[in-house]
Amino acid sequence: MSSFVFPARTTPAEIELGTTLQPKFGTDGLIPCITQDATSGEVLMFAFMNAESLARTLQTKKATYWSRSRNKLWIKGEESGNVQHVREVRTDCDQDVLLLKVEQAGPANAACHNGYKSCFYRKVASLDDSAPKLQFTARPLFDPATVYKKK
Amino acid sequence: MSSFVFPARTTPAEIELGTTLQPKFGTDGLIPCITQDATSGEVLMFAFMNAESLARTLQTKKATYWSRSRNKLWIKGEESGNVQHVREVRTDCDQDVLLLKVEQAGPANAACHNGYKSCFYRKVASLDDSAPKLQFTARPLFDPATVYKKK
Repeated sequence: MSSFVFPARTTPAEIELGTTLQPKFGTDGLIPCITQDATSGEVLMFAFMNAESLARTLQTKKATYWSRSRNKLWIKGEESGNVQHVREVRTDCDQDVLLLKVEQAGPANAACHNGYKSCFYRKVASLDDSAPKLQFTARPLFDPATVYKKK
Repeated sequence: MSSFVFPARTTPAEIELGTTLQPKFGTDGLIPCITQDATSGEVLMFAFMNAESLARTLQTKKATYWSRSRNKLWIKGEESGNVQHVREVRTDCDQDVLLLKVEQAGPANAACHNGYKSCFYRKVASLDDSAPKLQFTARPLFDPATVYKKK
């Protein structure tokens, strides 16, 4: 793919039941992206892509997002080494969401900056609580030593 | 939960590594929600929730979203019967995304209005194509007979 232009959106029938990839980028130029472990199915993270991210992800087969906080292209693992090798790219019925199936690689095999394999490392402990508490479901794979680290 | 008010957001450390559910609803009052089959791990759909949706999902254990197109609360399966029984509710590191693990029930066991079990029924056929085409990965479980139906 030499440019970052995807086909224009056509009709609902073609978008929903056709075979042309015509992703819907929002008014901010972004499309939500769910990233899942290709083998286990574990949801690893959720992020956004712009057209360039998606084009580069397809070209390089390395997950490349758009960082909203840093306002720049974000090649996952570029700094940490925890790259994601893309095995499959899916889209949903109305093509306004992407789903990547990846092999999470790198020194820690962690998708989350807090050191966990998946960003979804906490669940609501009991669905019957009136004041729901979170419960950890995993241990970190490395000590992130970030500003978020609790004393 | 008698009201739809969740705890106010506190510090990054508490949000990321604490046990208080303090979800971030955007300026539009919505939080993205990924819904996954509790058994197979298949990602079924992606939608949004507002505070009332989340509170009702926790209360009733039936997935309840916010329909942006209809601008109303959307109890999944209320009309089709294809309800989602919620087994687990997760959130991500910065608590701005939700992940539901559900048992998809109902007459068709389909999460997608187009008749598919999952909305993600198409993948990019080849990651090496300069003009990527989509390829179907599943057959519909029912004939949706919607306006999107292809002739």
